[in-house]
Amino acid sequence: MLKHLTDLIENAKGQAKKKLAVAACQDEEVLKAVHEAALIGIVEPILIGDIEKTEQIAKELGLSIEAYERIDVKDLAEAAKIAVKHVSSGKSDFIMKGLIDTSILLKEVLSREYGLRTDSLLSHVMIYEVPAYHKFVFLTDGGMNLEPNLEDKVKIVKNAVKVCKSLGYEKIKVAAIAAKEKVNPKMIATIHADELKKMSESGLFEDGVIIDGPLALDLAVSKEAAKIKGYNSEVAGDADILLVPNIETGNGIGKSLTYFANSQSAGIVMGAKVPIVLVSRADSHEAKLYSIALGSMISELN
Amino acid sequence: MLKHLTDLIENAKGQAKKKLAVAACQDEEVLKAVHEAALIGIVEPILIGDIEKTEQIAKELGLSIEAYERIDVKDLAEAAKIAVKHVSSGKSDFIMKGLIDTSILLKEVLSREYGLRTDSLLSHVMIYEVPAYHKFVFLTDGGMNLEPNLEDKVKIVKNAVKVCKSLGYEKIKVAAIAAKEKVNPKMIATIHADELKKMSESGLFEDGVIIDGPLALDLAVSKEAAKIKGYNSEVAGDADILLVPNIETGNGIGKSLTYFANSQSAGIVMGAKVPIVLVSRADSHEAKLYSIALGSMISELN
Repeated sequence: MLKHLTDLIENAKGQAKKKLAVAACQDEEVLKAVHEAALIGIVEPILIGDIEKTEQIAKELGLSIEAYERIDVKDLAEAAKIAVKHVSSGKSDFIMKGLIDTSILLKEVLSREYGLRTDSLLSHVMIYEVPAYHKFVFLTDGGMNLEPNLEDKVKIVKNAVKVCKSLGYEKIKVAAIAAKEKVNPKMIATIHADELKKMSESGLFEDGVIIDGPLALDLAVSKEAAKIKGYNSEVAGDADILLVPNIETGNGIGKSLTYFANSQSAGIVMGAKVPIVLVSRADSHEAKLYSIALGSMISELN
Repeated sequence: MLKHLTDLIENAKGQAKKKLAVAACQDEEVLKAVHEAALIGIVEPILIGDIEKTEQIAKELGLSIEAYERIDVKDLAEAAKIAVKHVSSGKSDFIMKGLIDTSILLKEVLSREYGLRTDSLLSHVMIYEVPAYHKFVFLTDGGMNLEPNLEDKVKIVKNAVKVCKSLGYEKIKVAAIAAKEKVNPKMIATIHADELKKMSESGLFEDGVIIDGPLALDLAVSKEAAKIKGYNSEVAGDADILLVPNIETGNGIGKSLTYFANSQSAGIVMGAKVPIVLVSRADSHEAKLYSIALGSMISELN
């Protein structure tokens, strides 16, 4: 089982190089990360966007991008559409968002005509390497789904499970997070968590996936807290995936891991036919590179 | 400005000793904490509950409790009622919950007949000493209010402001937390945060209180993240109070601080005429003692 995000890079290096379609590539930070991922042999970039601007940025940064395929298209929606079509037609393996609104890119991803739609739901999965935890934390969804219903949560869990599988996980422990362990009819998070647990017990999820909940975060990640509170389960104190009930909870826990707990991270959008790399300006340089490596590993499964 | 939770104890020592009514005192952990707070001179305990059991526990723990006032009452609701009446009549300064359901205790606290009801709302405030942050984090409400409306949030902020004031804060920066900085009609957290900010600008809160929002956690606590995202405000990167939109977010951030970010904490229930100390079994011994010291400092303001 991988324990360090740097392992993502090593693993991605060990597999066939993936073609990465960059939608609206005229972005300094994205270009830097893609270029580095190309240099270390993880991806072969296909730059789609305003090529004149992109070449200027590359020049300023001292990056040599002549070897990459470049498709000049100024219109942002058009750039997204070309990136999506590139993947649909097998010319690219996955997608990275450049200087374009997420909503514009995802609209093209979800197009029924040429898009990458599946019967799943798009959801955001973060992986954190947390110094104070004994393994990765997979957190979902602190980025896309505002307040998922039960059906959505099933899909969100399945998307996160795919990420774990791409990293070689066989046994995957999911904590359905709430503020308490007791089901409370006034707290939808507890009801959903209880339902998900029952679904998992009845075999609705893949082999190796075990869901417990409702669990407050302490019981999900601390065996000691679980012991003190007399809570006994295979997931308690040893969760891999933290399924959060709403976007604010995921966003808050995730940012707390980054800014207070000194954690490194990688993030990915799952649920389309291929993974989509969305990075934020505030992400560290490492986080961007890890996210590309993660996208590469997940697309290896396709 | 205090920076360490141990300062709470030093401060509480420096003020007049407070009378602490312990409702249903027959609890090992509570008794230990109360006894220690008494030994170091912060409180004078009034033990209300099953005194026979309490004395047995004290004996087993080797604690000498003979000097404390003891009121023998077996019924839990009755013990709560006596504790509340003790405070109403001025015989005690604040309350600590023992071996009794929170709901039973709070029902008596909120009694219109003899209770400690105000026109505020009961809310839970946590203080965290976070090694990775340059000052205390006041987090509210990850313990009581499930999904507060705007009016509730105003009261929740005011309760937390009182806690800051009891620690000597004059300028208090409040970040109304959401998942994004942009107001989104589908995300009630962002709408409320924007309203709170406007209320603060129009002087609805006390002097020295400044609210900004919506803010995701990174911008609330990291000046660097704020800079990268071009977000400029007096609160960004320097928040004192984190006002969360729902209980899961507060609970998740709080437990992440404790279990992943190595933080110490103290907690208190505000909004009644006096502070109420509620500790959890999983709280560290220090956390329990800090919470009593905090209750003592807040009741000094009354």
